Amino acid sequence: MTPDLIAAARDRLAGHARVTPLLSSPFLDEIAGRRVLVKAECLQHTGSFKYRGARSAISALDPETRARGICAASSGNHAQGIALAAREMGVPAVILMPSDAPQIKLDNTRAYGAEIVTYDRATQDRDALMLELEAERGMTLVRPYDDPQVIAGQGTCGLEIAEQAQAMGVERAEVLVCCGGGGLTSGIAVALSQAAPDFTVRPVEPEGFDDTRRSQASGQREINPAQSGSLCDAILTPSPGKLTFPLIQEHCGPGLVISDSEALQAMALAMLRLKLVIEPGGAAALAAALFRGNDLSEETVIVTASGGNCDARLLARALELLQK
Amino acid sequence: MTPDLIAAARDRLAGHARVTPLLSSPFLDEIAGRRVLVKAECLQHTGSFKYRGARSAISALDPETRARGICAASSGNHAQGIALAAREMGVPAVILMPSDAPQIKLDNTRAYGAEIVTYDRATQDRDALMLELEAERGMTLVRPYDDPQVIAGQGTCGLEIAEQAQAMGVERAEVLVCCGGGGLTSGIAVALSQAAPDFTVRPVEPEGFDDTRRSQASGQREINPAQSGSLCDAILTPSPGKLTFPLIQEHCGPGLVISDSEALQAMALAMLRLKLVIEPGGAAALAAALFRGNDLSEETVIVTASGGNCDARLLARALELLQK
Repeated sequence: MTPDLIAAARDRLAGHARVTPLLSSPFLDEIAGRRVLVKAECLQHTGSFKYRGARSAISALDPETRARGICAASSGNHAQGIALAAREMGVPAVILMPSDAPQIKLDNTRAYGAEIVTYDRATQDRDALMLELEAERGMTLVRPYDDPQVIAGQGTCGLEIAEQAQAMGVERAEVLVCCGGGGLTSGIAVALSQAAPDFTVRPVEPEGFDDTRRSQASGQREINPAQSGSLCDAILTPSPGKLTFPLIQEHCGPGLVISDSEALQAMALAMLRLKLVIEPGGAAALAAALFRGNDLSEETVIVTASGGNCDARLLARALELLQK
Repeated sequence: MTPDLIAAARDRLAGHARVTPLLSSPFLDEIAGRRVLVKAECLQHTGSFKYRGARSAISALDPETRARGICAASSGNHAQGIALAAREMGVPAVILMPSDAPQIKLDNTRAYGAEIVTYDRATQDRDALMLELEAERGMTLVRPYDDPQVIAGQGTCGLEIAEQAQAMGVERAEVLVCCGGGGLTSGIAVALSQAAPDFTVRPVEPEGFDDTRRSQASGQREINPAQSGSLCDAILTPSPGKLTFPLIQEHCGPGLVISDSEALQAMALAMLRLKLVIEPGGAAALAAALFRGNDLSEETVIVTASGGNCDARLLARALELLQK
């Protein structure tokens, strides 16, 4: 995984992925006690950064392989990214999704034109089902993070961060990234290692699901004791990826954690102050910037607002925090 | 009012105003039955396009005049734009606001550093109070729309629309603009008359407050029978401006109207599909694109999402529409 691969992904994504804005609010700066810049990936196609990696991976395939179709397993945002990118490129996509995924993510994935196969998280083995799909249909599996071209696609977000922040006069910063399997985190970290070496990437995870932070500390891939139980569903993964973890070890500073209630508060403040809708997992980095300032050291912090695919009920719950 | 004035304003705003993104969602296209592009001015500094006109007007003053300070009268978004732009340029600002303005707008304006003077809409004459302020303090009044440099500043939004839409391959479009006094509408219309002559600007107003539409039809500045009573508070003005109306007459197609409930639905869909928070008055153009398609003729419609300064209570009310 090298900066070259990210530069090539950027060329393939040009004119397709959105260059999302880097936003700010003096009200958030005041809460954080430092300058906070927000990379609004919730405004990316399909409502999350996942479109970048999906389009990067599908566009990197040779045409013959691509034409046989794409399959993927995902609880949501990766599924939507794959579905849209596949449709744009005119190839079929089959997505394996847990039957208890948020309804909006199931509906959206279907609306983007993918075929959905659901499975029961408790009783069925996702990986075995996926191998069956690959073998039966001859499709190419695109993994959500352990794929060099997916990581390269997510890394294009890092190139934009470097350019946008530097244009604002930022020379040093901590870059907080909402971290599940580590595709976005490692992609941004590799991109910045060349494009902005004085920016330090730090993963942010929900309390109790800090596999990456613990893995950074122990030097080996740690596994979370539970696989569900946080509002931040988009970034719950059992452990950092095989490909992503060594990149995180090499390039990232120590991880941070936030609570569900801090994620909800960050969602509420994003609506009020940035005019952005962010889902809980996509609000983790902003929550760390706002509420975990004691763990930060730079005067400028850049956060990814990684996704915004959120049920109305949960948005309403976040808004209640503003009405007290 | 000429395109040259807009080009000059753009130079003064460069590096200060945000170039806001032009967004879209296939889900909105499906509802509208055509392509819908959304100019996300709610992401502008202070949460509305008004910052453009405010910064344009203040930066156009000679330094000595500017140093004596700026005054303005506004129910909200213009006030915030003036307050921030004045603070950035290091000059004092006094804002005359109705005492019943939304609390968030009063609070924000104060937080941006302006002095606020409140008055009672029912019993006090705003214009007389403003003249007093001008005379007593030697400040320069910046009107919310009837000022060539304010119109020029809003017109910079039109230049961005032209460039962004043309980069997406759009050659013809109807451009729907949320219309109060007509500053944004006329500014965009003048900008597009040169930058994209095949784009037709059309003002959008709330039902019962369609002074601009009626004025376009009658050829003279009509006055609304009521001055309050719509959720779309940001775009309630008694009549089109003296400067803006002739520009609208010259450059715009016929006006459209929407209902409050259509504005609320558009707000809900903006949160769900665009990840944007829009206030009711800022959602009027999107509402027209989504729900008044019979009044449109082009295959592509571009709408301004003009502002996002909205109480949490009202956002929650819009979200309820998604939970039924």
